[in-house]
Parts: sequence; C-alpha cells; structure tokens
Amino acid sequence: MDFFDVVTTQRAMRRLKTDAIPDDVLKKIMDTAICAPSGGNRQNWSFVVVRDQARRARLGELYREAWGELMKVPYYAGATKEPADSPAGKMLASARHLGEHLGEAPVIVLACVTLDPGVRVSLTTGASIYPAVQNIMLAARALGIGSCLTTIHRFRDAQVKELLGIPADVETAALIPLGYPLGRFGRPPRRSVGEVAFADRWGRALGSL
Amino acid sequence: MDFFDVVTTQRAMRRLKTDAIPDDVLKKIMDTAICAPSGGNRQNWSFVVVRDQARRARLGELYREAWGELMKVPYYAGATKEPADSPAGKMLASARHLGEHLGEAPVIVLACVTLDPGVRVSLTTGASIYPAVQNIMLAARALGIGSCLTTIHRFRDAQVKELLGIPADVETAALIPLGYPLGRFGRPPRRSVGEVAFADRWGRALGSL
Repeated sequence: MDFFDVVTTQRAMRRLKTDAIPDDVLKKIMDTAICAPSGGNRQNWSFVVVRDQARRARLGELYREAWGELMKVPYYAGATKEPADSPAGKMLASARHLGEHLGEAPVIVLACVTLDPGVRVSLTTGASIYPAVQNIMLAARALGIGSCLTTIHRFRDAQVKELLGIPADVETAALIPLGYPLGRFGRPPRRSVGEVAFADRWGRALGSL
Repeated sequence: MDFFDVVTTQRAMRRLKTDAIPDDVLKKIMDTAICAPSGGNRQNWSFVVVRDQARRARLGELYREAWGELMKVPYYAGATKEPADSPAGKMLASARHLGEHLGEAPVIVLACVTLDPGVRVSLTTGASIYPAVQNIMLAARALGIGSCLTTIHRFRDAQVKELLGIPADVETAALIPLGYPLGRFGRPPRRSVGEVAFADRWGRALGSL
C-alpha cells in the first residue's frame, strides 16, 4: 500500500473480530515496530505479545475494571452526556465496546520501556516507546488489521505487571489490541493543521501552509 | 512510496542540507502529523514550525549548549570512549554534528503537548504527542526529507519556551529538524524482534515469530 494511504487512514479500531492473526503477519508488524527511533538508539523497549487465551481473558477483566475507573475522570464522565451520534458520543461508545471486549482481541501487545538506572520517568521517556507503538499500529493498518492505543490499563498496572511478569524497573507504556476490524478504515476526525500549527512562534498563523 | 519501504528505512538523519523545503511538502508532512492518535482524541498537540532564520540560529545556540549538558550524562560521556567506527561512535559523531548545526536546518518543528488542568505530566502524556512526531518523521522520509527526534533542548527548556512564546501549561516534547539529507536513507541498526519481544509473558521466547 502507498505510504500516505496507510498513514492518513489509520484510525482507532476498537471493534475487532476474534479471528487469529497469522504468524507471518504478526512478525511483519513487530519487525516494523523495531525500526522506530529511541533515545540514543538504546532500544530500551520490550513487547509482550499476548495470544494465550487465559491471559487475554484476564487482561480483559482488568481492562474492564480500568474502564470503570476512567469513567470517574471528569473529561470522560462529561463525554457520557454528549449525544450518542456526536463525535465524542461515538468515540465513547466505541471505547466502551473495547472496555467490555478487549480480552477477545486475538492479539494484545503490551509495549514497555525500561528505565536507565537512576533515571526517573518523564514525558520524554515516551519518546523511546510511542514511536514504536505508532509503527505497530501503522503496520497493522497496512496489513488490514485494526488496532488502537490505550493506556488505561495503568489503573490496574500492578495486576497487569504481575499477570505478565513485568519487572519492577519496567514501565508499561501502552496496550495495543490487534485484530481484523469490524468497521472500516478511514481518515480520522481531526482539527485542521491551521488550528494546531504555528509559524515561528506560538499563536502566529502558518499562512501559506 | 510503498508503506513498508518508507517505515523500514526511516533512520535518524542528522546531517542536513540547508536547501529550503517547499511549502506544499511541509504542508503534507504536517497533514500527516495530525492523523496520529491522541488520548481521547483530544488533539492537545501544537506544532511550532520554525523557518525564520534568526529564531533558528538562536535555537541552534541553545541546542549547542544543551549538547554540552548531554555530554555530562554518564551514558553519553561513556560513548565518547567507543571507537569512532563502532555503532555508538558513529551515532555520537552524527549527534555531535547536529549539536553544532541544528540551527542550519531549513525547518525545525517543536512538538508540544498541553496538559489538562490539574493533570501532572507522566509517561503516558507522551502517548498523545510522540505518535504525531513519528508521523512527521515518516512523512518526511516518504518525501525524501531527513529528520530526527531530539529532546535534549529540554536542558534549555525555559529559554526555548521564551524564544518561541510557549505558554507555561504547555510541555515541549520534541524538536524535529527537517531538511534534505546529506546521507542516505536505509534500514536502521536494531536488535532483532526475538531479543525484544516475548510470548505471553516477560522473558518467554516468541518461537515461531
């Protein structure tokens, strides 16, 4: 597929079929993940590829609990009052579906980042793992597989880490369910470049761009 | 270009020509950035696209100072003792070149993320900005433009924010110099998937993948 056709139609696919993903397809996705950059090319990333049914089911239970916690957060609690056919309402319905069915995705990848000794986690820790997460989702889309990026498993982080044997000095950065999509790929709803990009300093319109 | 040809040959290009990037090319890169996901699709991102020569020069000065700070960090100080033709040695030489020449890149993008009121910055804040940063670098590569992701400007964060008028509640997540490359694109040096991905739980070999 053409690069721009892939990258401009990768949207969060939260309704997934339970059909298995062939090994060679999954391998291609993970091979793409590791082409991403990381700070100092340290590649301090790890990916737990969960296919075992019992572990996926348990992840699904923990994720359902995490979803319940998320709904107590004001932004999301507020979204429940939006009309069901508004963008926020649709997103919430889709996210709720994932909240109830995550464990049914045939593959769930937990993306992790190991901290250097003595280094505290910060915003820029994410610069060494989320590019790889984005590569996973883009490669999946190129191969016709739906995915999304979720971090709310961290409401049950201790349990997730125990379930998958994650060491104490490793941070769980994202959970990425993968599966053939029930919906269709398409350009995601976004504000325009002109609304979020500035020329030379904050607040100055880009103009010709 | 084919998706996988782009994504598997995007490596950090730190030696860049000073030739200008046409507006339509830059627009396509930024249009790709905003297709990335963000938490709850809040799109709490902003991108300051710096083309003004004086501001780039000042960013270059600040970046040179930041590079000096980085060289005091043990990991990087240690890398200076590696042979010049080793992977670490080559990376260091390339990063040093950027340390001295960042301001000469024709475009420098500062990717920012605005925190929700009352929310503290964390690892997962990065999930709402680094996927967009990765999209910028991939789109650039698809269009023959080199880039890299650097976060060391944060050694001079207050000065960078002042120079570009960044508000207090906005975090600067990455600096991305863009320019036609002096070197060639190619598969980046990485450990294999088998070394960084596990099956079902930490430490268990993926086997068939």
